[in-house]
Amino acid sequence: MTREEKFMQEAIVLSQNGITQNDGGPFGCVIVKDDKIVGRGSNTVTSSNDPTAHAEIVAIRDACKNLGTFQLEGCEVYTSCEPCPMCLGAIYWARPKIIYFANTRQDAANIGFDDSMIYDEISAAICDRKIPAIHLGREEALKVFINWKNKTDKTLY
Amino acid sequence: MTREEKFMQEAIVLSQNGITQNDGGPFGCVIVKDDKIVGRGSNTVTSSNDPTAHAEIVAIRDACKNLGTFQLEGCEVYTSCEPCPMCLGAIYWARPKIIYFANTRQDAANIGFDDSMIYDEISAAICDRKIPAIHLGREEALKVFINWKNKTDKTLY
Repeated sequence: MTREEKFMQEAIVLSQNGITQNDGGPFGCVIVKDDKIVGRGSNTVTSSNDPTAHAEIVAIRDACKNLGTFQLEGCEVYTSCEPCPMCLGAIYWARPKIIYFANTRQDAANIGFDDSMIYDEISAAICDRKIPAIHLGREEALKVFINWKNKTDKTLY
Repeated sequence: MTREEKFMQEAIVLSQNGITQNDGGPFGCVIVKDDKIVGRGSNTVTSSNDPTAHAEIVAIRDACKNLGTFQLEGCEVYTSCEPCPMCLGAIYWARPKIIYFANTRQDAANIGFDDSMIYDEISAAICDRKIPAIHLGREEALKVFINWKNKTDKTLY
């Protein structure tokens, strides 16, 4: 087994443990830095009443907590399934160097997880999406953006 | 002021409070159900070392906790800025009925938050993305998906 296969195996074990324990859907993820696992997660959506508690989000939050940082530069993400758009977005904000994934979004769709629909929606123009989005209150909100721009003691990310 | 303008004002106040308190970036969000605010959030990425702690994610988690559910059917999302792909994905998983947003992704880019890049990456083919994604270990991972499919006591979402 290569090191990559070994780390992926850890993610797959988490995905099985998650469903055995009725924590949520069949997804697991580990975050690796310098050949060590620094974060672990499995899907806990239904057990924690948190629709954002996908394996990757849980693992990213765990890794960041353990490392005391809000970025995962130099880290590797091993996930038992191709990330959904929410998780892929989270991965981009966390900025790891590489993603390894096992099952595909089509495999997920085949067992009832419709990531593909969300991929299509995110790529669609706002006016063509299934959840309507209404533009409102920009004038007031923009003042806060300008306050941020002018703020001298801010932490950038 | 309409009811929608009033709720958006609440989201904008949260966005300002967040930067005043140095919690994170200039973003706020409220979730409304039956004319009542059931969840609130502001960006706490840098203060909580959590790259997923965007205003919408924080508000969705808060609303789900308060309502004791992992879905936000019938709810309205008021966010001070157009959701990034991560947050839009989270919104689709939570399934509210409508989104109201104030600042746009271009406004966010103008003050240094490059959601646009992430929108482009998510729409791109896997092989064309900036963070490489390697397919690995599908055979083992697929067994867990089949176990999920055959599981009789699962909670669907």
